[in-house]
Amino acid sequence: MSRSCLAVILAAGDSTRMKSSMSKVLHPIAGRPMIAHVMAAVAEAGMTDAALVVGRDAEAVAKAGSVAGVSVEAFLQKERLGTGHAVLAAREAIARGYDDVLVTYGDVPLVTAAPFAAARERLAQGADIVVIGFHTDKPTGYGRLLVENGELIAIREEKDATEEERRITWCNSGLMAIDGRKALALLEKIGNDNAKGEYYLPDLVEIARAAGGKVVAVDAPETEVAGCNNRAELAFLERLWQERRRHELMVSGVTMIAPETVFLSYDTEIDQDALIEPNVVFGPGVKVEGGAVIHAFSHLEGARVSAGATVGPFARLRPGADLAPQSKVGNFCEVKNGRIGEGAKVNHLTYIGDAVVGAHSNIGAGTITCNYDGVNKHETHIGANAFIGSNSSLVAPVSIGDGAYVASGSIITDNVPADALALGRARQEIKPDRAKSIRERALAIKAAKKAGK
Amino acid sequence: MSRSCLAVILAAGDSTRMKSSMSKVLHPIAGRPMIAHVMAAVAEAGMTDAALVVGRDAEAVAKAGSVAGVSVEAFLQKERLGTGHAVLAAREAIARGYDDVLVTYGDVPLVTAAPFAAARERLAQGADIVVIGFHTDKPTGYGRLLVENGELIAIREEKDATEEERRITWCNSGLMAIDGRKALALLEKIGNDNAKGEYYLPDLVEIARAAGGKVVAVDAPETEVAGCNNRAELAFLERLWQERRRHELMVSGVTMIAPETVFLSYDTEIDQDALIEPNVVFGPGVKVEGGAVIHAFSHLEGARVSAGATVGPFARLRPGADLAPQSKVGNFCEVKNGRIGEGAKVNHLTYIGDAVVGAHSNIGAGTITCNYDGVNKHETHIGANAFIGSNSSLVAPVSIGDGAYVASGSIITDNVPADALALGRARQEIKPDRAKSIRERALAIKAAKKAGK
Amino acid sequence: MSRSCLAVILAAGDSTRMKSSMSKVLHPIAGRPMIAHVMAAVAEAGMTDAALVVGRDAEAVAKAGSVAGVSVEAFLQKERLGTGHAVLAAREAIARGYDDVLVTYGDVPLVTAAPFAAARERLAQGADIVVIGFHTDKPTGYGRLLVENGELIAIREEKDATEEERRITWCNSGLMAIDGRKALALLEKIGNDNAKGEYYLPDLVEIARAAGGKVVAVDAPETEVAGCNNRAELAFLERLWQERRRHELMVSGVTMIAPETVFLSYDTEIDQDALIEPNVVFGPGVKVEGGAVIHAFSHLEGARVSAGATVGPFARLRPGADLAPQSKVGNFCEVKNGRIGEGAKVNHLTYIGDAVVGAHSNIGAGTITCNYDGVNKHETHIGANAFIGSNSSLVAPVSIGDGAYVASGSIITDNVPADALALGRARQEIKPDRAKSIRERALAIKAAKKAGK
Repeated sequence: MSRSCLAVILAAGDSTRMKSSMSKVLHPIAGRPMIAHVMAAVAEAGMTDAALVVGRDAEAVAKAGSVAGVSVEAFLQKERLGTGHAVLAAREAIARGYDDVLVTYGDVPLVTAAPFAAARERLAQGADIVVIGFHTDKPTGYGRLLVENGELIAIREEKDATEEERRITWCNSGLMAIDGRKALALLEKIGNDNAKGEYYLPDLVEIARAAGGKVVAVDAPETEVAGCNNRAELAFLERLWQERRRHELMVSGVTMIAPETVFLSYDTEIDQDALIEPNVVFGPGVKVEGGAVIHAFSHLEGARVSAGATVGPFARLRPGADLAPQSKVGNFCEVKNGRIGEGAKVNHLTYIGDAVVGAHSNIGAGTITCNYDGVNKHETHIGANAFIGSNSSLVAPVSIGDGAYVASGSIITDNVPADALALGRARQEIKPDRAKSIRERALAIKAAKKAGK
Repeated sequence: MSRSCLAVILAAGDSTRMKSSMSKVLHPIAGRPMIAHVMAAVAEAGMTDAALVVGRDAEAVAKAGSVAGVSVEAFLQKERLGTGHAVLAAREAIARGYDDVLVTYGDVPLVTAAPFAAARERLAQGADIVVIGFHTDKPTGYGRLLVENGELIAIREEKDATEEERRITWCNSGLMAIDGRKALALLEKIGNDNAKGEYYLPDLVEIARAAGGKVVAVDAPETEVAGCNNRAELAFLERLWQERRRHELMVSGVTMIAPETVFLSYDTEIDQDALIEPNVVFGPGVKVEGGAVIHAFSHLEGARVSAGATVGPFARLRPGADLAPQSKVGNFCEVKNGRIGEGAKVNHLTYIGDAVVGAHSNIGAGTITCNYDGVNKHETHIGANAFIGSNSSLVAPVSIGDGAYVASGSIITDNVPADALALGRARQEIKPDRAKSIRERALAIKAAKKAGK
Repeated sequence: MSRSCLAVILAAGDSTRMKSSMSKVLHPIAGRPMIAHVMAAVAEAGMTDAALVVGRDAEAVAKAGSVAGVSVEAFLQKERLGTGHAVLAAREAIARGYDDVLVTYGDVPLVTAAPFAAARERLAQGADIVVIGFHTDKPTGYGRLLVENGELIAIREEKDATEEERRITWCNSGLMAIDGRKALALLEKIGNDNAKGEYYLPDLVEIARAAGGKVVAVDAPETEVAGCNNRAELAFLERLWQERRRHELMVSGVTMIAPETVFLSYDTEIDQDALIEPNVVFGPGVKVEGGAVIHAFSHLEGARVSAGATVGPFARLRPGADLAPQSKVGNFCEVKNGRIGEGAKVNHLTYIGDAVVGAHSNIGAGTITCNYDGVNKHETHIGANAFIGSNSSLVAPVSIGDGAYVASGSIITDNVPADALALGRARQEIKPDRAKSIRERALAIKAAKKAGK
């Protein structure tokens, strides 16, 4: 569609019931602010320019609402005089004269491009106003869509509805599309001659029809247009989002044993034939290839898990973790900015940070790459086929050659050549019967303490 | 309300279907025995004296049922002859003559003060008996409340009900309030002329009315009066409790990404603008301030998390963990009886026990405070701005001065002065090509073993 | 029942919607391939010989379908010409002449022995065909069972059904039992004179009746006969399985605080009065005795937890972990092929592999048994009442005597006699003010780097 398109996103709404120190639309769903979800949907529907109507946290909202390739302007809404008034905060943008104007709220994070695209299609076919409606089992409180001969003749508010009209289950979502050439004139005709003295956007239906215009409605799933007024509703939207995305992944060939315990981010990519066990949390920026296994109780963020690699249980991959095929990161292991080579194993109680582990190397339990000196970060390089004995400390910057061995418990501060053995530990001493005397003394102290109390 | 009030709590019920080695009412919901939940509710409703009718595990039940500021007496129920008989096990207490007598079961842990308070209100207005009812979609099996002109005229048992009466969905919860001055006389009139030869408490309705008394009913939500007969029902009550409390916290401004995976204790306190990620378990005694973040897979008990502090993922805070503002306790870290100073970081694979970590200190990965000598516990004190290198062992009692450094892998047994560097590790040695020969020998052993099989 | 019984299991079905690199019936439910669940059910119902009709991954399916004490033959289905044709792939087995022939799909993992046993009972009473039906709220798409005078007169396909017939909610599961003496003759009469040109097994009903035979239906719960066509349905079956098994365990006296977060394997055994906290994953081969406590975030596989032992939170027990009564394995601890003696404690950040820990011994935080030399595995033996100081490395093969002490941070390579103290660590040195100079240098480097950028 080559028609020009402006989206007006109402993101200034108060959030008193959110009881939050930040704007409602900044609260994330699937690791991304609600406003960014909405922006992505309108962008996918072909919007090229956006007018963000902001209030609280204007700067942060504008930043969260930025989209690559789209010109986004923020307009401050100074007074709260109704949705019709809010849209006109973006008067300057609307006045430029687009083909299509989309109006949406910023707190409907599950919305997709589909209803906007359908609405634009109807504009292209000659409609002046296209209201996006939804069907619901519980219409109470919503404006009902009154349709006759395919045209929307009114949005009837609950309080004005007859008993019969109240039985209508097709309702107004508040989202709509307006013929951009007529939008400003129509919006300016909205009055505030009502009980609250507010300017109501749904009045556009009557106004456009009175001017001989055509008004129609298109449909969206109820969940897509669901908004959010408190944090229980936020959690509910998160749940809907997660259920939708888990289902998509499963039908695309990802196994989830207990999908309800897998938490995805907006950008999580998992390929066919990956296995995700129960209780896995994906932060942003994760890619899991086919044949990979993510065991239970794993937490991944900014990580890549290649084909055939296994993670967890109880593993944490942080940004920059990059697991080559057939590699393993096991229990109580953390990898941050670390490349784990093909077939390499990091299996127990290990911290790998700012490091490269070569192919087929084995990192013993309790190994720590000491990458931080309290001020700066340094790198560790471990070659291929190396073996790092348990409980070793590799003090970066340091390099361990291919095929080298580090003896258990060693503190490695200097580079280790290929195929060399490095040790850094004291010789063992035995004090016969000393444990007995230590124990007796400790028991005496304990008894003395007890007596003292 | 200054009327005196005795609560009679029936906690002697058999628990054969619980298949348990302990009394049913001792099974916990949200980390607190069921009986304690019930006691808290009646106490909040103004009960000052309590009569616990106990059977099995009498001593433990009495202990679990104790409430600060309330006189609790336990009465042993020797025979099981029905609820009417059970209440009379507390005859001695009832005979004292209170204004109000509340009767409740000990296995309705979700009950709140509200229905008891409402019932007492009605007693104060002149009722002799106030039955606490509940509305349900599935009334089958429950006694139905028959109301006429605002008075409860009968509790109709399922088996005696007409078809029309069976359609009644307002049912008897078994909880009630009795005019304390008349209670003993009324209770003593309950007979056992029925199929099972038992004394039924609901008979009080007829008895009181026959004596010209007034009987009314008040309402409670079905979930509040739900009882528990096996461990599947116990889990169901736990779930209802958790859902109720999570919802309260969310609408008060706490973010929970996946509330269904957050498990709270009866006394968990979380302030507005705290963020709780999925899969967090709160044991008793936890307080989380606003702006704190509890990452996924964290387990907290007896801990305080101050504003701006972050916990987890994969962190365990045990009793006495006290995190100052902006401090961090990260993955695979355990803190027990430990104060973590402002801005201090304990980020990886660390055990902090019986210790103080000063402000802005950094505790390296794999650090262990060795607080136990096999018999006694000792303390570790780390000053401000200190840096503890990775894989270090701090053998308590020991103290690390402000600004001191401990080199990675050190065993620290003596105090370290401020700004000093402490080392306790062997010098690294390199044995060229030794890894190769070790590997070859190991492979030869492996081959020999294999051949030997 | 001493009647001979052959089960024909249809396991050749395509799995395109599974989008899987392996056969659908190999996908596991509760840690066991679907086909193995089905085989266990028919085996329990008395089947002694099985004919597996396989397609893709024939060898793996046959292996997964093997059952102790049952002769299982695999028959390759070369063409896909309908269920009637598929059963005849096992013609050779059917021709042997059994008393009873059971026909089932391989992707109904929740099926139990009950419907098969009921069907066999009806065969024994003279039926020629016994169809296994199920009642459902959503019959659309299923063949309806038309019953008259206790006999099944037809299976009416959706497309052929009258409006009245469509309201029937008793449907064909596709599972059935056939009089084994007549089976081959009846199956061979199935024709393919229909739109798709396929051989339909339900046609047996008409065929048998036309031959004067008796056809009846028995009932199975809808969940038991539910099949699986994509991975979302696989997850749904897993959930049903888990719910069924959790409920069984709870009513048998196991406490689960949040059963929906506990994941069991097909063979998990948990005794009465065990407590399972939220978020516990059981891999195959776990036995938990009464009085044991499995804390939150634990992962167990191939492990035994004896009475009074406690596990977790954050513990991982791997195959061969064997916890004696009153022993403890705590947070961030892993035990693999390790016996933990009575009352012994392994509480923090420890790896125990190929080891024995004696009774009442205490293993300090951060202890690692270094069981792997890069090629071979070796054993560690710790006696009773020993104390292993924190952050120690026990380099196997090695043995620690009864009552011995290992000082914190020691690397132990040689055996330690009973009651002896072993040390293997460097003496601590202090460099006054050195931390300050190191810090200043590091800050200078940082500043230089920043300036360089």
